[in-house]
Amino acid sequence: MINAVNIIRRKRDGHSHDDSEIESLIRSYTTGEVTDYQMSAWLMAAFLNGMDDNELFSLTKSMLYSGQVLDLSDIPGKKVDKHSTGGVGDKISLILAPLVAACGVPVPMISGRGLGHTGGTLDKLEAIPGFRTNLSIEHYKAQLRQIGAVLIGQTEEIAPADRKLYALRDVTATVEFIPFIAASIMSKKLAEGIDALVLDVKTGRGAFMKTEEDARNLAMELCEIGTHFGKDCTAWITRMDSPLGYGVGSWPETQEAIRCLHGENVTDVMEIVYTLASEMLVLGGSAEDTSEARKTCEAAIYNGNALDKFIEIVERQGGDPTVVEDPTTRIDFEMVAEAPATATGYVNDINAYDIGLLAVEMGAGRMRKEDQVDPLAGLILLKKPGDAVQQGEPIARLYTGKLDRISEFSERATAAFSVSSQPPDLEPLLVGRLANGTWTSN
Amino acid sequence: MINAVNIIRRKRDGHSHDDSEIESLIRSYTTGEVTDYQMSAWLMAAFLNGMDDNELFSLTKSMLYSGQVLDLSDIPGKKVDKHSTGGVGDKISLILAPLVAACGVPVPMISGRGLGHTGGTLDKLEAIPGFRTNLSIEHYKAQLRQIGAVLIGQTEEIAPADRKLYALRDVTATVEFIPFIAASIMSKKLAEGIDALVLDVKTGRGAFMKTEEDARNLAMELCEIGTHFGKDCTAWITRMDSPLGYGVGSWPETQEAIRCLHGENVTDVMEIVYTLASEMLVLGGSAEDTSEARKTCEAAIYNGNALDKFIEIVERQGGDPTVVEDPTTRIDFEMVAEAPATATGYVNDINAYDIGLLAVEMGAGRMRKEDQVDPLAGLILLKKPGDAVQQGEPIARLYTGKLDRISEFSERATAAFSVSSQPPDLEPLLVGRLANGTWTSN
Repeated sequence: MINAVNIIRRKRDGHSHDDSEIESLIRSYTTGEVTDYQMSAWLMAAFLNGMDDNELFSLTKSMLYSGQVLDLSDIPGKKVDKHSTGGVGDKISLILAPLVAACGVPVPMISGRGLGHTGGTLDKLEAIPGFRTNLSIEHYKAQLRQIGAVLIGQTEEIAPADRKLYALRDVTATVEFIPFIAASIMSKKLAEGIDALVLDVKTGRGAFMKTEEDARNLAMELCEIGTHFGKDCTAWITRMDSPLGYGVGSWPETQEAIRCLHGENVTDVMEIVYTLASEMLVLGGSAEDTSEARKTCEAAIYNGNALDKFIEIVERQGGDPTVVEDPTTRIDFEMVAEAPATATGYVNDINAYDIGLLAVEMGAGRMRKEDQVDPLAGLILLKKPGDAVQQGEPIARLYTGKLDRISEFSERATAAFSVSSQPPDLEPLLVGRLANGTWTSN
Repeated sequence: MINAVNIIRRKRDGHSHDDSEIESLIRSYTTGEVTDYQMSAWLMAAFLNGMDDNELFSLTKSMLYSGQVLDLSDIPGKKVDKHSTGGVGDKISLILAPLVAACGVPVPMISGRGLGHTGGTLDKLEAIPGFRTNLSIEHYKAQLRQIGAVLIGQTEEIAPADRKLYALRDVTATVEFIPFIAASIMSKKLAEGIDALVLDVKTGRGAFMKTEEDARNLAMELCEIGTHFGKDCTAWITRMDSPLGYGVGSWPETQEAIRCLHGENVTDVMEIVYTLASEMLVLGGSAEDTSEARKTCEAAIYNGNALDKFIEIVERQGGDPTVVEDPTTRIDFEMVAEAPATATGYVNDINAYDIGLLAVEMGAGRMRKEDQVDPLAGLILLKKPGDAVQQGEPIARLYTGKLDRISEFSERATAAFSVSSQPPDLEPLLVGRLANGTWTSN
């Protein structure tokens, strides 16, 4: 029988746990033998006294093996996934997964739902009528083998310890601790059966990591865990001060992703898509280097192969391909207001955090866990940082079912834009890259 | 509605709480609105990041006003109590309360049960057949008014937040934190309706405060809280390396206390009794200084007034006075074994912690909360540090109902004694005194 009080006391007093202590703590917490109130005392002690690398690996391993670990070794090729730490307007996965699969690298992608002010890939996919993300493991494996890509949600069987711990951290002020965040991400990703992983660690006011230093530390811990478990990892730090692209909300983002697959060049979105996709091709062994990989990816967009792959995915997962073939065909999607610019000049920046929270309140996300997402709610920005605007000119379109709050929403959208008389110096979107333990600044 | 996560986060990030934050945290925890798992995260954050004096006062006040606060202002005289942080063989209260009351200072004493390796005053009193400690508040006040002393247990109405917090701290490794210990003690003592308090803070391996530094810090915090709430406090640090006196266990200790009231001079016990009683007389206003007070106390022992007062207390609380008049009359009290000395020489010391745990296992205390105490179980030491012993000579008598474990108990009693060839240098029992913010070393 576990002595939870002794384990808590050891972390409280600044000791390092050995592998068996962490393993028994997490296992006993998963079964309920260790209570929530004991676990939260341990979480706070670890938060304040820190965890070393061995403890981080043990924690990840314990969370990983608390559930099912998929085996994709009978599917040919190196399976590569991408994980983003979450931002506003981040529809990258919807373009990236079919693009990389179209270039010959299998992409087994298990995604999440919206969290806080950020959206989630599953919510966006489900804005395609009929699209199912709750596939069986058999379907998941068969689809990956047959068409090279599959996009599903986390099943009950994957990393149950992480689910339980995450819910507890959320209500005990123990969320913002890099080792916990890293172990949570990697325990789920390692359970997918991947061979390699590309990470998009966001930094800035619309990201969970507000500072570059925190983003770098998280990227390092994520890659160290990957390496420890024998998986190749490359991480990019990317800026998340203003929203990515123009759409924010499920259908506004899915529609934009589909337009990108049709060849529309939304520059910030496609810059990140090509950067991450190139890394995935290299890790997957289908390109020698990232510049060769990038050419392959650009070709797959322009020749329509990536779009065709997305249509294949949508069909295999029960979705209506007509909205992918022509994204203007969702007839129930209607703008209800336009937010105007308050001054003439140049858009200086757009506060991604404020826009993210606004979209959530407009119905695009969940205020509480049990809330339903409105797939049609959100915004389409009409201006991006650096663009010239005239006072009174529309700068964002609003989509919401909460018609009684339209004027409030419109004011908040306007307030998220700052306008200056001179064009701003735009900061680079790509901040730095971590590969094989080496940082390269962009 | 309280935002518990924000309060936990503030303490986690090293901020100080204001009075209203702590007040709402403790109130909401008492009502159940704040959960155990949130409270334990806060407890650990406070344990590791510390609490300042204002937070300590707010915590004590919140715990105090979580329940009933007795008002004894209609009873004449300054009411003075004593609190000990707990040791082994500590039967001081049983002698002190009637002694001080016999000298004219009212003593309203609310005591606890055994905890860990230490005994509790309530368990000892209940070794007197018929003695009741669960009196009504009306009885408590009437008895105090009529005979000047009353000894009861903590009622459900007194400091319920402390009871709930203590149970949680016990299972989350957040017990050994001086501000929590101080707030717990003082919230209960302040609820008694006292005007002044004398504190006996034990230090040494048989105490909860193992080091003198910890004992001093605790004494200071206790006195600061007392002063803040307008109560005069004097604290003594006393040594608890070896057990106090000869008896350990309920009846072994109660019997020894009665013998002391009959005039037997158990030197270490009576040294502490006279020291603390003198302080109580001074704080209660019935003596000018402690040396005058001490003479008054010694007289009350020798002229039998203290014994008479104890008999009055026992009668008023339903106990059988014949065992007080003649403590050899508990006919069911029988020794079952004697532990022998392993060597010839001098008793160097007696490990109070080991003896305390041994007595608990012999039936004198509780291994688990729901255990019943055996009032007759325990030990009577036959030798004290500094005494000469012969190999094989009995050094302790054992009393237990667990006859199948007698040889184990006897070996453990023997092992708690260390014997050396030379008489040891005995350390002074009284370590230091804190009064009016000033330390005096003894």
